[in-house]
Amino acid sequence: MGTVLTGATICTASGAFRADLRLEGETVDSVGFGLARPGDAVVDLPDRLLLPGAVDVHTHFDLPLTTTSTADDFASGTAAALLGGTTTVVDYATAFRGQSAAEGIEAWHGRADGRAFCDYAFHLALTDWKGSLAEELPSVIDGGISSFKLYMAYKGSLQVDDGALYAAARRIGELGGLLCVHCENGDLVAARAEELVASGVTGPAGHPLSRPASVEAEAVGRMIAIADLARCPLYVVHVSAERSMREIVMARRRGQPLFAETCPQYLLLDEGRYGREGLKAAAFVLAPPLRSAADGRALWGRLARGEIDTVATDHCSFTLAQKAVGLDDFRLIPNGLPGVEHRLVLLYSEGVAKGRLSLERFVDSCCTAPARLFGLRGKGSLEPGSDGDVVVFDPRVEWVLSASNQHHRTDYTPYEGLAVKGRVESVFLRGRRLVDGGTLLDGTPRGRYRRRQPFSKGVRP
Amino acid sequence: MGTVLTGATICTASGAFRADLRLEGETVDSVGFGLARPGDAVVDLPDRLLLPGAVDVHTHFDLPLTTTSTADDFASGTAAALLGGTTTVVDYATAFRGQSAAEGIEAWHGRADGRAFCDYAFHLALTDWKGSLAEELPSVIDGGISSFKLYMAYKGSLQVDDGALYAAARRIGELGGLLCVHCENGDLVAARAEELVASGVTGPAGHPLSRPASVEAEAVGRMIAIADLARCPLYVVHVSAERSMREIVMARRRGQPLFAETCPQYLLLDEGRYGREGLKAAAFVLAPPLRSAADGRALWGRLARGEIDTVATDHCSFTLAQKAVGLDDFRLIPNGLPGVEHRLVLLYSEGVAKGRLSLERFVDSCCTAPARLFGLRGKGSLEPGSDGDVVVFDPRVEWVLSASNQHHRTDYTPYEGLAVKGRVESVFLRGRRLVDGGTLLDGTPRGRYRRRQPFSKGVRP
Amino acid sequence: MGTVLTGATICTASGAFRADLRLEGETVDSVGFGLARPGDAVVDLPDRLLLPGAVDVHTHFDLPLTTTSTADDFASGTAAALLGGTTTVVDYATAFRGQSAAEGIEAWHGRADGRAFCDYAFHLALTDWKGSLAEELPSVIDGGISSFKLYMAYKGSLQVDDGALYAAARRIGELGGLLCVHCENGDLVAARAEELVASGVTGPAGHPLSRPASVEAEAVGRMIAIADLARCPLYVVHVSAERSMREIVMARRRGQPLFAETCPQYLLLDEGRYGREGLKAAAFVLAPPLRSAADGRALWGRLARGEIDTVATDHCSFTLAQKAVGLDDFRLIPNGLPGVEHRLVLLYSEGVAKGRLSLERFVDSCCTAPARLFGLRGKGSLEPGSDGDVVVFDPRVEWVLSASNQHHRTDYTPYEGLAVKGRVESVFLRGRRLVDGGTLLDGTPRGRYRRRQPFSKGVRP
Amino acid sequence: MGTVLTGATICTASGAFRADLRLEGETVDSVGFGLARPGDAVVDLPDRLLLPGAVDVHTHFDLPLTTTSTADDFASGTAAALLGGTTTVVDYATAFRGQSAAEGIEAWHGRADGRAFCDYAFHLALTDWKGSLAEELPSVIDGGISSFKLYMAYKGSLQVDDGALYAAARRIGELGGLLCVHCENGDLVAARAEELVASGVTGPAGHPLSRPASVEAEAVGRMIAIADLARCPLYVVHVSAERSMREIVMARRRGQPLFAETCPQYLLLDEGRYGREGLKAAAFVLAPPLRSAADGRALWGRLARGEIDTVATDHCSFTLAQKAVGLDDFRLIPNGLPGVEHRLVLLYSEGVAKGRLSLERFVDSCCTAPARLFGLRGKGSLEPGSDGDVVVFDPRVEWVLSASNQHHRTDYTPYEGLAVKGRVESVFLRGRRLVDGGTLLDGTPRGRYRRRQPFSKGVRP
Repeated sequence: MGTVLTGATICTASGAFRADLRLEGETVDSVGFGLARPGDAVVDLPDRLLLPGAVDVHTHFDLPLTTTSTADDFASGTAAALLGGTTTVVDYATAFRGQSAAEGIEAWHGRADGRAFCDYAFHLALTDWKGSLAEELPSVIDGGISSFKLYMAYKGSLQVDDGALYAAARRIGELGGLLCVHCENGDLVAARAEELVASGVTGPAGHPLSRPASVEAEAVGRMIAIADLARCPLYVVHVSAERSMREIVMARRRGQPLFAETCPQYLLLDEGRYGREGLKAAAFVLAPPLRSAADGRALWGRLARGEIDTVATDHCSFTLAQKAVGLDDFRLIPNGLPGVEHRLVLLYSEGVAKGRLSLERFVDSCCTAPARLFGLRGKGSLEPGSDGDVVVFDPRVEWVLSASNQHHRTDYTPYEGLAVKGRVESVFLRGRRLVDGGTLLDGTPRGRYRRRQPFSKGVRP
Repeated sequence: MGTVLTGATICTASGAFRADLRLEGETVDSVGFGLARPGDAVVDLPDRLLLPGAVDVHTHFDLPLTTTSTADDFASGTAAALLGGTTTVVDYATAFRGQSAAEGIEAWHGRADGRAFCDYAFHLALTDWKGSLAEELPSVIDGGISSFKLYMAYKGSLQVDDGALYAAARRIGELGGLLCVHCENGDLVAARAEELVASGVTGPAGHPLSRPASVEAEAVGRMIAIADLARCPLYVVHVSAERSMREIVMARRRGQPLFAETCPQYLLLDEGRYGREGLKAAAFVLAPPLRSAADGRALWGRLARGEIDTVATDHCSFTLAQKAVGLDDFRLIPNGLPGVEHRLVLLYSEGVAKGRLSLERFVDSCCTAPARLFGLRGKGSLEPGSDGDVVVFDPRVEWVLSASNQHHRTDYTPYEGLAVKGRVESVFLRGRRLVDGGTLLDGTPRGRYRRRQPFSKGVRP
Repeated sequence: MGTVLTGATICTASGAFRADLRLEGETVDSVGFGLARPGDAVVDLPDRLLLPGAVDVHTHFDLPLTTTSTADDFASGTAAALLGGTTTVVDYATAFRGQSAAEGIEAWHGRADGRAFCDYAFHLALTDWKGSLAEELPSVIDGGISSFKLYMAYKGSLQVDDGALYAAARRIGELGGLLCVHCENGDLVAARAEELVASGVTGPAGHPLSRPASVEAEAVGRMIAIADLARCPLYVVHVSAERSMREIVMARRRGQPLFAETCPQYLLLDEGRYGREGLKAAAFVLAPPLRSAADGRALWGRLARGEIDTVATDHCSFTLAQKAVGLDDFRLIPNGLPGVEHRLVLLYSEGVAKGRLSLERFVDSCCTAPARLFGLRGKGSLEPGSDGDVVVFDPRVEWVLSASNQHHRTDYTPYEGLAVKGRVESVFLRGRRLVDGGTLLDGTPRGRYRRRQPFSKGVRP
Repeated sequence: MGTVLTGATICTASGAFRADLRLEGETVDSVGFGLARPGDAVVDLPDRLLLPGAVDVHTHFDLPLTTTSTADDFASGTAAALLGGTTTVVDYATAFRGQSAAEGIEAWHGRADGRAFCDYAFHLALTDWKGSLAEELPSVIDGGISSFKLYMAYKGSLQVDDGALYAAARRIGELGGLLCVHCENGDLVAARAEELVASGVTGPAGHPLSRPASVEAEAVGRMIAIADLARCPLYVVHVSAERSMREIVMARRRGQPLFAETCPQYLLLDEGRYGREGLKAAAFVLAPPLRSAADGRALWGRLARGEIDTVATDHCSFTLAQKAVGLDDFRLIPNGLPGVEHRLVLLYSEGVAKGRLSLERFVDSCCTAPARLFGLRGKGSLEPGSDGDVVVFDPRVEWVLSASNQHHRTDYTPYEGLAVKGRVESVFLRGRRLVDGGTLLDGTPRGRYRRRQPFSKGVRP
């Protein structure tokens, strides 16, 4: 017995076409016409789009900070993801200083296992580099975690120096992994922040001044040089500035394997937000910060042309009360925005519906490319044999984003009041409909942990 | 009653996956598992790849020149195409000076109709520009010809001046068409050729000296400026030089709609051929000429990254006897190479099998992108509902290209003796198997003329 | 008996220093301290700057057009030049279609000889290219004319095609000459002008629309490619647009010998002028047209960094009555602005005094570099042994430019009402003071014709 | 009573001309003809060139390292300089960790005062950054030291982090100073060196592998970003790689004040030296290391076009015995080459005589520009009123460089056996002839300490 979705347009990374889609068991069985067999449920979906379940490769759920934790944990975060059409998240498990990789991963399993509403996998973030970690990596990769993140920012906590970046990149490259890096020059951020505070700029407006675009672009250029020397493929997370993209595109032309991620906030919001008062500005504090409107326009072009590979959310949510802690010293505002729920609708409405993005690039950057790059077999595609992760998207619905109708565990959304076009109507996870009419059908967390293949073994376009 | 192809890997522009494919009538019915219905023929194709029928958007069959005609006509040319896995060609119908567009098109229908073994469509090449042509264009587009070619080369015959290029581009852009241009500076070619002959360089080695890469790159840059002023999308045919690609990529970054085509000969052969004696060099005379090996390497990279959109053949074949006419004056050698049959195998063997090109980019550049850009509905894809044009490709077969085993009507091939990997085993055209075991199953020309949609109405990634 | 100028600052292309300067006979005798000899006149010039007599390598005096002639002839033009501190002009002698080079040069000698108030030399402008001209060139160079101009603009009159440009460049390069080119795509200008007029845009505002910056940059890029193929050094006259400079700088990096000239009008005025009514716009019609303010800023930077080599005026003056002829059809407005008198004061006041330009770059671009590039021995420098061409410049005087206080034979100046700082106080030509207190001391035209050395024999930095 | 040098060609940064030059007291009195006064000595110098005394702004004399000191002290170093035509050196006084600026400077005066044969000045090198140094800087600048060096290389000793670079640059920029930086990524150098040694590469060949060009270019790009944020003019010392120049030229185009220095060794020698055995390779160990021959060619072009501003030597000499210490661990080889004596002859012979460099650029890069950039009043020029520092250079002499005929206190020269054209014949320091016939005329060290003007007050071209 299967389910046949009829009447909709099937959207893939290489084209859209009218055909039916049949799910059986946990997978896509077939695509075409006349697929229904005796006993099948047939769901008529005229005018809808069928999208592959989306893949968000940059989330931070239940992340402990020095004095607080992110507002969303794996339960609330993955529920919001699923309601927004994301059927798989890859969260950054972190080995904090002094921990082994295994300890970091174990802690993350502890946070996620049994609580997730969508499928999930992990990257491993490393906050220092030492011989024991180098020795652990093969077993980490065997365990299905094949991408590793290092930070060039957050001096004194997450940041590592260039020697560590190089040594880690050498090891990761050698093992067939993929290196993800947060590229901002943490030394400069700290020096400028200190200077700003000393000169009396203590409010949220100081945040973007402490980390201008050149601080990001410099780090991107440096990291590219390091990855090239270390012969390691590099994935630059959350690119926010056109200047950074220029570094990436120039290096790519020399043949270096380089991938770029951006986030909806960098496409849609701009630094004007930091000109507002108090919490209205603090709510938008994240790193890298929002950039100029010109940067946003340039990023849309880069995304449309395929120079940006993926769109992820960097979902790292805090309540306004949590943000308020740093109102008098921007350095204390926890960095991050909610967003895991809204990625598909934002990219569709502001991208596809407004003519900035083809339907193909939309599907590729939100679903197919992230699955491929991060070795998530069966995800990100509607090919027969894939996981039965299907989003039924109604492109005709017009509605307004608001904190009141979101499912993030925050009391605001950066997109409050934004009128959008298109809505996630239902979502199938591995063949089972879990969302319909915009609500969860079932309170059971059915998400599964997914082992990922090494980058070096991937089939990549 | 349909046909079910089982056991093969289905290859698309966005991924490859194991599934069955069912043809019914003239179209792809479905893709998936368990598709066979009573009465269906089931063909087991273990280890084969299923590719969409390839689309060659640059051929010259039965083209009259001043004193001769191309060796292949529509019968031999489309048969060779089909045997090589190309199920659709777009040939350059030409309105010669003094002719109306309608006269040019009618002449081409006279050459092609009833003789073609694969489906075919036309571009319209214009050899001058005047008000009456401007008035004819809407009806030409209505008739299914929505792309137009102009020549910056061939002074005194096909070449038009920049004012004509601009005026034509304005009109084509306004009507939603796509402008294709042969970019070489014909004035410079003529001046250099004259100088070379005057200085005693008369053999085939003079040909590339008369038209170096900068002569092409200059014209590409100029045409980009003209198309930009005229607000017309531009498709640069047969890009042979990295310097030309630099112009294209720079302009694209400014947001201009620009597309680039290259040909297998520019990827695989180099100017070393012109150092040979007599006919061994003359056989490789084409315009633009073969370039340096470094250009070839750079073009592979551009193609792999998607900066080159399409691979076409510019098939324009002559026998060695025809080439021999210009042995003592390279200006008289007819320009062109055979190749319509070999595109898929060359790109697979030298590209995919050697790791220069992903399977996805291979399918996209040879099949999907050309169909999309030139408005060929139902072509270039294996989506259910598409034309049942399917190539069964066996990636395991190793063989050697030779004049003796080709189907072009020429007594040589530029790839003589090249050992390749992979072979077109059978070809379905609109659901009917026309090629099997490397031979035509049927002497009847079953190709149909295809009207094309305007560029402006296309769904494009 | 000599003249000793004391108390001033001597300004050269490599530095400024306090010292005296002694003139004897027609040359600079020495520079230093305690130079006066018995019988010398000593002139005390505290706070003044001593500049080398300036060299304007782009003027059009007494130029016949189809229906009119320029307002200034050699008498009025060279008098204005001298009063403005320019002691040498290089005018464009022109061989019109059908004329031999000798006939063109002879006509120019007829216009200039015995009438000039400053020294003068000629370039030779060619309006077509043929074998007889190629044969004449060696004798032209022997006669002291070693630079040749061709036009890519002015379709139907001055414009030549790319084949002619190439052939001429080959010959000029071979003979050690320097090729000067007016770079705008004349075919595009004509096509756009026709389109504009057809659509009802007939006023002066149509002029810049008919020749946007890309029409110039395209031609610059094309000419660079041609000069490179022809192995001929290239001097691009009147660069008006930053996009053109980009082409020049890129090509220079590949080692090509390339020189760029701009004019005060492109540094100081912008396209806003074309938004005015009738004659107020027509008065600013020239080719290339005024560009954006951003272009102007960029050109200042290019000049300051030495990427623009020379500043000349392209003085080509018409009265408002002459301009009025084309008020209803911008194509009929004679192209050109007056300016030979104002170059030094404009560059000093807007450049040096405002900090955009060093004193050294000012002297180099207005005096030294033009003399060097065009083989004017003894000009453009205050080295002992040089011609005694000295400008006494008072940097403290503030005054206002106006048609009422200029010496051009026009009833307007483009700089009407501009408050400037600095004034040419006196001018020595070959050791003799001809200007003092801002007036000509003598009604006798004492300018001499100067033979120039070939570019290939020049001493060049 | 003065000295008149007659018959020679006077060479300046903007031209060369035949004239006499008269020295009186400590300065150039005049330039021209008939300058001799009663009592003057007249020296006839037919066919000679007169150059301004050269200025070497990058030397390390008597520099203490951990376990050794440089071979040349101020006596031997400045004597060699003077014999080679360099009349002023600017040495890097260093405030070692824990020292105040004043202590560092005092130590350097202790090393230099009373021992120098040519004039000398100091930069101040800082090895960390703290508030007390920030407070000291104004008095340092008042004392005539207006340029400051920081190191991005030499992890654990001289290297400072990006925060320190930023804070120092802010302070230096604010005070009108000039920031000099050694740009190599010290973290990467250390990581790679460790990796190489661990893998058994311990000989001198490991040195260049530990610090490839990208390690320098990365640091150049990073430092440019930091200087831009800090609004501080930047002088990049010893640029060795074309990739670094690309970063510099790109940033300059954005208007950033940036200056580049290279050294003869990067123009003339290449990495091939590291392929030799033992000491033959160790003798060439310096940082940055010698690069590819292609880099050298590119640097010549950059220098000829004025994109490299200055040529200095980075003279930092060791004997072969000192170099031998690190034969088994390249990390222990002291970094540096001798060269202060050979700069002029190398640049003339390999640059001017071979047509790579104009005489003007030669004088500018070796004499005039260094004096200007570093505020050395009266130096680097032959203008009347300048210091009477004159080099009599005989361009006709051909000889061979060798350890046996040099005056560096080392037992080798990197240019052993190089046949050169041109020789420093005599040298005047402040009007007094101190060198003649290639030997010191006098054993008395007559060099004086020179205070330098701040960068912000300089007259710069």
